[in-house]
Amino acid sequence: MKLARVGDRGSEIPVLIADDKLFDLRAVVDDLTPASLASGAIDRITELHERGELPELPASTPLRYGSPIANPGAILCIGLNYAAHAAESGAAAPTDPVLFLKTPNTLAGPDDDVTIPRNSVKTDWEVELGVVIGRRAHYLSSPEQSRDYIAGFVVANDLSEREFQIDRSGGQWSKGKCAPGFSPLGPWLVTPDECDPGDLRLRSWVNGEPRQDSSTADMIFSVDHIIWHLSQFLALEAGDVVLTGTPEGVALSGRFPYLKPGDIVEVEIEGLGRQRQRFVEWENNHGDIR
Amino acid sequence: MKLARVGDRGSEIPVLIADDKLFDLRAVVDDLTPASLASGAIDRITELHERGELPELPASTPLRYGSPIANPGAILCIGLNYAAHAAESGAAAPTDPVLFLKTPNTLAGPDDDVTIPRNSVKTDWEVELGVVIGRRAHYLSSPEQSRDYIAGFVVANDLSEREFQIDRSGGQWSKGKCAPGFSPLGPWLVTPDECDPGDLRLRSWVNGEPRQDSSTADMIFSVDHIIWHLSQFLALEAGDVVLTGTPEGVALSGRFPYLKPGDIVEVEIEGLGRQRQRFVEWENNHGDIR
Repeated sequence: MKLARVGDRGSEIPVLIADDKLFDLRAVVDDLTPASLASGAIDRITELHERGELPELPASTPLRYGSPIANPGAILCIGLNYAAHAAESGAAAPTDPVLFLKTPNTLAGPDDDVTIPRNSVKTDWEVELGVVIGRRAHYLSSPEQSRDYIAGFVVANDLSEREFQIDRSGGQWSKGKCAPGFSPLGPWLVTPDECDPGDLRLRSWVNGEPRQDSSTADMIFSVDHIIWHLSQFLALEAGDVVLTGTPEGVALSGRFPYLKPGDIVEVEIEGLGRQRQRFVEWENNHGDIR
Repeated sequence: MKLARVGDRGSEIPVLIADDKLFDLRAVVDDLTPASLASGAIDRITELHERGELPELPASTPLRYGSPIANPGAILCIGLNYAAHAAESGAAAPTDPVLFLKTPNTLAGPDDDVTIPRNSVKTDWEVELGVVIGRRAHYLSSPEQSRDYIAGFVVANDLSEREFQIDRSGGQWSKGKCAPGFSPLGPWLVTPDECDPGDLRLRSWVNGEPRQDSSTADMIFSVDHIIWHLSQFLALEAGDVVLTGTPEGVALSGRFPYLKPGDIVEVEIEGLGRQRQRFVEWENNHGDIR
């Protein structure tokens, strides 16, 4: 099952995508939020869809996709989870998953313009497999348990400003990870019955030229291991977004230039869809962005 | 003005505290949340209080205080912001504010029991001045602007598990900062007209013995500098909680033992009230905690 949120920023409506059609979920859930996931929205949607009782959304002009989850409590990120990326970053491969956080107000739709932050000279891309948590997970007893706590999988671009992250940060990465719009998510949330995260090709391009091209099979720590591991230190909540790390091929490696206004970044994960972002200067925006 | 949330966990009601009385705010705001702060709740409360139109809450049995803000979008923390604490942690004093994040589901009331995480051997206290943001702050033009974006000040205990934070983390601190209940906040939110954060005594005790005893005047980066600085890298939102760092006198220094079940921690900031937490073993809890 593919779930999404479509419409203008701040007024997206929840939909199910099947057979190239959009089905309106507003009669089932207000929105795709932590609260609706925690209250069993996906089971209710599945049941109504199987019964053929969901109304089709009338076809319209090309729709904007928003983040498929609204207002998550946390965005939890795993760093250096692909050995070749750890090496290109000048870091050793970690012995435990490395956790850092992004603020939830970084979320954006998959194709929204991204504003390069003021004074940025090192804005960088990172294609990542995202996991949306389906219910509270604390002290799971084994990695095998993790699947029961996952609502679905999603494409993410974990955008980063490397000077803010590394040179201005005292070593704590979040300062370079939290600019508005720095977490494009989507287009869809794909439920686990339709997606095995163990060996998915994930790629990125800048202005059509290939950058990253790896497989989730290259992760040092698997999705199941990550969810179980995090649950030993904190409680994951329904709606939380877990970003599972990026493979080699980012600008931080020194092999490619950082992003500049006008650049187009595309990221794609097999079976989970594709994102496309145009990068723009802060000065080109009309005031503050949300 | 002192604002608080009182009642059982998950069903707190918003109140104003004045002249040793509690005034019921439920006719003015549903709750003290990011949305209510963003929509001008504090101005409406001020006006009704000045007109004497707020109903008094009937006196009752001793009340539990909750966190004075519900469901913040982010908890942003400044590390190593007191020179003597940086030294006792074995770190150099930072040249820029060091930012890390805690998940919002760490929030607890000021006097709630705290569960020592499973497998923890280094649970530690940190008294801190907390700042609650009143409205979205992005690219402030100067530190002087910061005051206009502050809803109020609050006592926080930035609880930390040092082994998780330092030895299991790959150097990123959040893994040792996010256990459930690790951010006691309150008892009250004190508005800026009644609190100058520039020179407040802040102290902590374990089982009645003094631990920390410093002043916010010893901060390397002032509250105004921190809010302005963060706004250059991310957007602070109404309801966000900013913890401004802890002074020397924590267990990480090696001068005091880490916390064990049965210990009582108290933290206090001049004019902002006092917290008191009893530390308990995970096994003593009945199932999962919220």
